[in-house]
Amino acid sequence: MIKKVLIGILCSAAVLTLGILIGHFGITKSSGSAPSWVRDVAKDVDESLVEKFLSEVDNIQIQENLRELTKVPHMATTAGDEQTVKFMLKRWQDPESGLDQAWREEYMVYLSFPDPKNPNSVTVVTPSDAVLHTVREKEKPYTADQEDPEVGKLVYANQGKPSDYELLNRTIDLNGTIAITRYGGAGRAAKAINAAPYGIIGVLVYTDPLDINDGLMSDINETYPHSWYLPPSGVERGSFKNHYGDMLTPYLAAKEETYRIPAKNVTGIPPIPIQPIGFEDAYILICLFVCLPCCFTLLNLNLCSSDVKLDIFNYEEVRSSANVMGVIRGSVEPDRYVIYGNHRDSWVHGAIDPSSGTSVMLELSRVLGKMVKQGKWRPRRSIIFGSWGAEEFGLIGSAEYTEQYFTKLSERTVAYINVDIAVFANATLRASGMPSVQNVIFTAAKQVDAPGLDSMSVYDNWIQYANKTSPAHGTIPRVGYLSGAGSDYAAFVHYLGITSMDISYTYDRSKTNARIYPAYHTAYDTFDYASKFIDPGFTSHQATGRTAGNILIRLADSLVLPLNCSDYAESLEEYLKTAIDLAQSYIHRHIVTSSAFHVKINAYHPPLSHLSFSPLKVRMINDQLMLLDRAFLNPLAFPDKYGYSAGQPTFPGLADAYDKAESSGQSNDWDKVHYHLSVLSQAIDGAAHMLLDVI
Amino acid sequence: MIKKVLIGILCSAAVLTLGILIGHFGITKSSGSAPSWVRDVAKDVDESLVEKFLSEVDNIQIQENLRELTKVPHMATTAGDEQTVKFMLKRWQDPESGLDQAWREEYMVYLSFPDPKNPNSVTVVTPSDAVLHTVREKEKPYTADQEDPEVGKLVYANQGKPSDYELLNRTIDLNGTIAITRYGGAGRAAKAINAAPYGIIGVLVYTDPLDINDGLMSDINETYPHSWYLPPSGVERGSFKNHYGDMLTPYLAAKEETYRIPAKNVTGIPPIPIQPIGFEDAYILICLFVCLPCCFTLLNLNLCSSDVKLDIFNYEEVRSSANVMGVIRGSVEPDRYVIYGNHRDSWVHGAIDPSSGTSVMLELSRVLGKMVKQGKWRPRRSIIFGSWGAEEFGLIGSAEYTEQYFTKLSERTVAYINVDIAVFANATLRASGMPSVQNVIFTAAKQVDAPGLDSMSVYDNWIQYANKTSPAHGTIPRVGYLSGAGSDYAAFVHYLGITSMDISYTYDRSKTNARIYPAYHTAYDTFDYASKFIDPGFTSHQATGRTAGNILIRLADSLVLPLNCSDYAESLEEYLKTAIDLAQSYIHRHIVTSSAFHVKINAYHPPLSHLSFSPLKVRMINDQLMLLDRAFLNPLAFPDKYGYSAGQPTFPGLADAYDKAESSGQSNDWDKVHYHLSVLSQAIDGAAHMLLDVI
Repeated sequence: MIKKVLIGILCSAAVLTLGILIGHFGITKSSGSAPSWVRDVAKDVDESLVEKFLSEVDNIQIQENLRELTKVPHMATTAGDEQTVKFMLKRWQDPESGLDQAWREEYMVYLSFPDPKNPNSVTVVTPSDAVLHTVREKEKPYTADQEDPEVGKLVYANQGKPSDYELLNRTIDLNGTIAITRYGGAGRAAKAINAAPYGIIGVLVYTDPLDINDGLMSDINETYPHSWYLPPSGVERGSFKNHYGDMLTPYLAAKEETYRIPAKNVTGIPPIPIQPIGFEDAYILICLFVCLPCCFTLLNLNLCSSDVKLDIFNYEEVRSSANVMGVIRGSVEPDRYVIYGNHRDSWVHGAIDPSSGTSVMLELSRVLGKMVKQGKWRPRRSIIFGSWGAEEFGLIGSAEYTEQYFTKLSERTVAYINVDIAVFANATLRASGMPSVQNVIFTAAKQVDAPGLDSMSVYDNWIQYANKTSPAHGTIPRVGYLSGAGSDYAAFVHYLGITSMDISYTYDRSKTNARIYPAYHTAYDTFDYASKFIDPGFTSHQATGRTAGNILIRLADSLVLPLNCSDYAESLEEYLKTAIDLAQSYIHRHIVTSSAFHVKINAYHPPLSHLSFSPLKVRMINDQLMLLDRAFLNPLAFPDKYGYSAGQPTFPGLADAYDKAESSGQSNDWDKVHYHLSVLSQAIDGAAHMLLDVI
Repeated sequence: MIKKVLIGILCSAAVLTLGILIGHFGITKSSGSAPSWVRDVAKDVDESLVEKFLSEVDNIQIQENLRELTKVPHMATTAGDEQTVKFMLKRWQDPESGLDQAWREEYMVYLSFPDPKNPNSVTVVTPSDAVLHTVREKEKPYTADQEDPEVGKLVYANQGKPSDYELLNRTIDLNGTIAITRYGGAGRAAKAINAAPYGIIGVLVYTDPLDINDGLMSDINETYPHSWYLPPSGVERGSFKNHYGDMLTPYLAAKEETYRIPAKNVTGIPPIPIQPIGFEDAYILICLFVCLPCCFTLLNLNLCSSDVKLDIFNYEEVRSSANVMGVIRGSVEPDRYVIYGNHRDSWVHGAIDPSSGTSVMLELSRVLGKMVKQGKWRPRRSIIFGSWGAEEFGLIGSAEYTEQYFTKLSERTVAYINVDIAVFANATLRASGMPSVQNVIFTAAKQVDAPGLDSMSVYDNWIQYANKTSPAHGTIPRVGYLSGAGSDYAAFVHYLGITSMDISYTYDRSKTNARIYPAYHTAYDTFDYASKFIDPGFTSHQATGRTAGNILIRLADSLVLPLNCSDYAESLEEYLKTAIDLAQSYIHRHIVTSSAFHVKINAYHPPLSHLSFSPLKVRMINDQLMLLDRAFLNPLAFPDKYGYSAGQPTFPGLADAYDKAESSGQSNDWDKVHYHLSVLSQAIDGAAHMLLDVI
């Protein structure tokens, strides 16, 4: 039965391709004496304009954008953030910019901050409250906060995964302890959420040098400013909540007058405090103060009587956060949008995260705007640039934007391109996205020169670092899937079901095991760091910008949208194989027949003979392609998962339900697996209906 | 602020009108030497074809359709139902029909039936179980039905509204009683749901002659077959549940392999049995056996010791129910649908409900199909006919259809036309719909002759029976709003947010107070009854068919969709006034500022100067019009209300929340009012964004 679905989808892809060819031919031949709009509606990507665009994207302009953006720390809603808002507006509202419109869009969002008058502290105290050790309050400079404290014995809980706590709990009574964990393995908030059921009263989290620095630790000659590695006092900040978007206004845009749920009803935040610290302090705490059971107790004989004291004075406040929006209006289909976005707020100076992406976005808007201003070009579809606010606090700006413009964006957005951290490292392109965007990414990457390499394209370089074998295409670069909520694509993908992608330059994994670039979310992520250790010369920024911009132009200008549904079918087949493997074991153990997974598809006869060729027929095909991802939406299928209404081809609902049923073994949990198989089956059916039959 | 919204929407309407005129002009002028599709895309409604259509809709054909459809009772999923499925398929699959495709679509749905081997009974028994009275099991013919019984004293509870039970409870202990109620005032299921909290163990419901028969009761000379009035033994059947769609597969299409929730988890059904009876039996029960408190006890002195015994043997079963679908493919925009539907299943013979509507639908499809077959016409957009199954059990066929094709229908449906009961009575047209459809209904009604009246249009006749004053149009016929779940439009309106309407012919209210036509849902709703007492000569059926068909052609053929957003704005203003009145008193009493209701709208500048004219620009305007109702959708805003995801301009969420808060006075209920004000405010904002700014 599954085979039938896939054949159906593949067939349909073939029909579409045929339709595209004939349609294109039929249209372009028919200009001449016809009215001018006949020629306009038949316009396609102009390759000479793409070349012009690629040649104009300038590395030095990107460098200077970054210098400007990183002059001051610009954490969301601070004065520095406002400075970047004004900078973006000045650029985009300049009549010379070529943009048709630019504006700021304010949301009143609920954020948590440390209290400068009452700094958070982590200390180790004796029973008589004498301080044995104080964790560093601020990172060490090189070139340039709750009421009653939580007090408890310190335990080491690895990565704070459920299995880590379970293992630890076998040998030690975790009740009333404070757990120290390292980044990785489980999400930031999850480390505390997983800990709470064991009676743990607070969690510390640090960045282990083995995970981030390839083991290097000394700031005398090993770490920044001697290399890109994280100095011992570096603290990785982050949002410690599980949901995205503003917490007081779920599913509604956080406007001033919007109803806010009481703060006590907020869900998705850890029930116990969690505090990030540097590895310098973490090692002292682990080596000297961790209470280990049995054999290890000898090592910290007397110290085990000491307590760790967490004084957390964070406070919550509703503050105004801004998105900055810029628009180039489409000439032929203004009501179709290609959205290109990146957040603007950082934790400190945020040179790489996010200002590398913002610098690239500004350069793209400069080059494209100039082409518009000079009268050389106007995109077929509208281009919307979004500089999102408060991403670091949980993707807030982009989520509020999707909530506010729900219907409009759902109905009109062709694709969303996210370039957050533009350059993690300067070895190779990295791309993630829905299966249908693979082809346009490849086309774009083949036309861009790889930085620092003679006559090699970004594509040819990429394929050496990450590749896979495709039944249809042979060896191709591996494109990842946007399954999580790691950046602003989340609301576009999970809430609206919009075809999305995330583009960057990244590491040579044979040269480093760093979990992420080492200065990530620390005070060391500066212009100096970026220009010396991440991308000297800014040519990788340039390559990311050229590739992403080329994709943007193709999505905005192509007569027929460059979204490939046969690649969709291929990925779907991969995911379905996994799902069937899951389902088989489930079916054998829990239900008699496999009828639940019989995904039926009728033998539709695609309406080739009815096709007469007109702009409306091309639009029909484009709408089918645009809505392919939306067809997987089932807004009511995920009652337990905030902000997820998409039934996506990776089947997150099914995967979650399966995991739960596997661990609990309870029949009502298996019923939920069965339920999600039905949701999935009908989602595939719905997607097939969108493609196969126009009526 | 409200004013600003309205002005914004009105402005936008004006801009659209302008765009429409220029767009149309620009396109029609540009044919000539251009390719043939240039002419095709500019096609508009051909008035001569409308005239031809009107002249061909035949009353005798409708009469013969009705005769055929009512040969046997055709309750959902019975052999008689299957007979009507085959009849529809034969007509629509006939190569001469002109339809491009017709098929049956099966769903496995959960229904409740009386058990023929174990009929339901209502008896009055003495303490020693001697039967004093047995309620009639079957209706009296003139021309041509749980395990342990529920036993309790009988009480009279008026219409079974919450206030009725509350009042009664002040003077009598309702625990363990059986309540007799009359139809009207509260929904069928609500009468039992309202009763249960008082410990009432069963409910009887009857049709009061004052509500249905203008007081007439005698079958010697007053009721059918002497008139259209209901005979004393007539029992109004109906579905006694609160949700619509299949109960075991919420939000999923009820396909064979679909996951079904356990029957014990079904929601929306009354917790106690409820049984309909005729007024003949009802009057005996009320006069002789009702236990009245105080003064009235003298009247039924001994009899009050008797109990009423409800033996209800209904059983539930999953059965196959079919929709029959027929399609005329669109020539220019096949991916835009106008859907015309009506259910097929009845309670008994169902001549009026629903076969009057089915007879009309068959006549429309005959005339339109013939025009296609003769090569005279093919609609610009696709026309889909739907003959829904199992409507009487809770709108099941249409609801499953919308669940199965959720994305496709949401994205492509221009409008839904429902003609269920085509003729309630032969006095005047009746129409309900979203505000934007008023104008096309008027245009169509002006072109149709009123039955039995010389040279008067359906429109001119209608305005005499039901009218209102519109600021923009002066005196116009009153078009109702589709707020409930009374027929198959419910899933289209509330679940998908599709622009919908419901058309019929109805009473002269000065001549009868009948709640509905008296034979409604009884065994007397036959061909004989319909042809003698409802519409002799079938000319009102013809007028309904001509009007609905004319609307259908206009929606399918108009270059620019005949949906009027300034009428939308006018209705919105009416509803907003009501909402503000509600909100004011709320604001005065419960919150300090009225900021919650400040519906903001920015001063958008509609892009007139950017408009060059092409089919894609017309499509853009059409999509704005098509999606206007969809912009009010907020799928996650009604977590407590099954199947409602629309934030509709009548504000059902706000109204419900307000009612609850008013009666409870609790602050968390007032918080919900505040929440729904925000949902509403953002829905209006969303709709305005769809109209005002293309980008």
